[in-house]
Amino acid sequence: MTENISLVEAFKQTKYQIAGNGKRDIQVLKEAFDQVDRQQESDIYGNGKIIEAFQEKMATYLGKESAVFFPSGTMAQQIALRIWCDEKGVKKVAYHPLSHLEIHEEDGLKELHYIETILLGEEAGLIELEDVQNLEEEIACLLLELPQREIGGKLPDYQTIVKISEYCKEKGIRLHLDGARLFEILPYYQKSAAEIGSLFDSVYISFYKGIGGLAGAILAGGKEFTQQSKVWKRRHGGDLISLYPYIISADYYFDKRISKMEQYYEDAIELAALFNSCPSIQTKPAVPVSNMFHVHIAWPKEQLEAVLEEIYYKTGIGLTSYLRQTNQSSVSFEVSVGDQYNSIPRDKLREVFQLLQVKLK
Amino acid sequence: MTENISLVEAFKQTKYQIAGNGKRDIQVLKEAFDQVDRQQESDIYGNGKIIEAFQEKMATYLGKESAVFFPSGTMAQQIALRIWCDEKGVKKVAYHPLSHLEIHEEDGLKELHYIETILLGEEAGLIELEDVQNLEEEIACLLLELPQREIGGKLPDYQTIVKISEYCKEKGIRLHLDGARLFEILPYYQKSAAEIGSLFDSVYISFYKGIGGLAGAILAGGKEFTQQSKVWKRRHGGDLISLYPYIISADYYFDKRISKMEQYYEDAIELAALFNSCPSIQTKPAVPVSNMFHVHIAWPKEQLEAVLEEIYYKTGIGLTSYLRQTNQSSVSFEVSVGDQYNSIPRDKLREVFQLLQVKLK
Repeated sequence: MTENISLVEAFKQTKYQIAGNGKRDIQVLKEAFDQVDRQQESDIYGNGKIIEAFQEKMATYLGKESAVFFPSGTMAQQIALRIWCDEKGVKKVAYHPLSHLEIHEEDGLKELHYIETILLGEEAGLIELEDVQNLEEEIACLLLELPQREIGGKLPDYQTIVKISEYCKEKGIRLHLDGARLFEILPYYQKSAAEIGSLFDSVYISFYKGIGGLAGAILAGGKEFTQQSKVWKRRHGGDLISLYPYIISADYYFDKRISKMEQYYEDAIELAALFNSCPSIQTKPAVPVSNMFHVHIAWPKEQLEAVLEEIYYKTGIGLTSYLRQTNQSSVSFEVSVGDQYNSIPRDKLREVFQLLQVKLK
Repeated sequence: MTENISLVEAFKQTKYQIAGNGKRDIQVLKEAFDQVDRQQESDIYGNGKIIEAFQEKMATYLGKESAVFFPSGTMAQQIALRIWCDEKGVKKVAYHPLSHLEIHEEDGLKELHYIETILLGEEAGLIELEDVQNLEEEIACLLLELPQREIGGKLPDYQTIVKISEYCKEKGIRLHLDGARLFEILPYYQKSAAEIGSLFDSVYISFYKGIGGLAGAILAGGKEFTQQSKVWKRRHGGDLISLYPYIISADYYFDKRISKMEQYYEDAIELAALFNSCPSIQTKPAVPVSNMFHVHIAWPKEQLEAVLEEIYYKTGIGLTSYLRQTNQSSVSFEVSVGDQYNSIPRDKLREVFQLLQVKLK
């Protein structure tokens, strides 16, 4: 994906943006630290009140025995899979063809852990119970990503997860949750994180998606599992002397936004409907099941960029900073609803979509 | 090493401490960020002004083509060795028996990178040219740690490094510098970081030792090398969306303390002499060659703890928060001189060592 500088520029100059929680600037850190006592002691190599208290809070939230804070999900998830592979003595796992591990991590799982992967299910779909049942090779662990981000954030129905979980337990396959956006799907399922967590042997969550923190992740599971994950965290170079910049901000924004997930979800449904009211536009999913969806527009990239720039300058509302070309005459972009959507005046929002309806005709 | 709670407590209550740059508390972050504009944009996955400008500054400082910021030295150094091993197709490296990689990283190099290691030289000594010349097996890379931290911070004479460097170049062995304390040795050698850096193919430096930042490291070398290191950084889970909490503090404390290294070095010589004036005490090295040294005291651990506690409460000066037992009747601890030493009133300092002289008789 090559960036279009003038679209980025036009987007940056908008007063309102439909997605996200705001700019990723130093203010994000400063706001989280404004209330923190200067004398509070740092965590030291995984120990200390700051890190231990937050780990405990997240373990409870996820209904797990124990939790470990990691600098990144990439690190946390590779480690989870490695532990389950070593446990079984089988260096093979299965996940969706568009899993983060498959397409965004430079093959760390293979290059560092020598773990083989089986890609389960269709790219455009979800992993189904039958896919798991039809596995011909033995695997140590199955990774499910909820929601499946790269296809717009689709979700299986809850009973499918329950059945996959039961099947895996029966077959001695560990089930790991890529819950980078777990908070964001709770309103759809009307389940607690602990209820969903109970279906998995290990759970990873992230603090800079819906939560809007700086970075950082939690890996949760049984005590023996998390104890091993600390050893691997050190091996990966993730056992930093001080992780508190991420922990304090994760904790702060968790408290600030965790109760807003229902609102983001409802806003996403409304916003997707607005997009779907325009010619040539389809969202995936058609009706979002979390705060996220993908917008597909059947227009050539360069022509649409010109249209969007004009709309941004005219209305002061930014819809996206980029367009990803899906084929010669079609593009897409991702929307994750956060705090910003609700700050847009309703008449401005109506204006931008009326304009879009006219321009895309 | 088991912590003695009452010694830790007595140490915490002292007004002055002889070593370090002060408490590792939130103030360290806040001071670095107080002057930073709230609107400044975050780095994003290794890109952006904040990270690129600092990498360039450090590349120039180290006299290298290019530099990459890492969350930790553990990650940076394993990656450096992996790159050199892959280049040569030989998965073997050599380093000192007390290298950080050998004793503090849970064997990450072996468990993640499947790299074999040859331990070169005696535990209590340094790697000499002859050790390298006598290597019987082919290695891809030799790692030198300057100063050799675990033996109190010893240094080879400069010509030894030059000769090892020449020999390695001749034999096609890559030379990597573990420069966790590189800043701290420049006054002894009276060389610039770039002069020392020119003897090595790759250099790692750290920002939370003498510099006193939060965490973080730089890995520097040729462009092709650092480019590859970015791919490995992602694989390790170190390519965080935002690393700026570490970068901004590293930059801030680098500017604040880089010119003080000569002072720390001179202070360390003075302080070591004070310790050596006491019965039963010997520092290693006897005369420091950087800001650090180890203090060895021929006393049983528990008895000495009681003595130290008494001295701390009486004088308000803390010498160490821990004692490491080296044998039944001897202990040691590490001293790294920083800003704090010079804030101690001279008469208080005299008092504490006079007291120590009396008590250790």
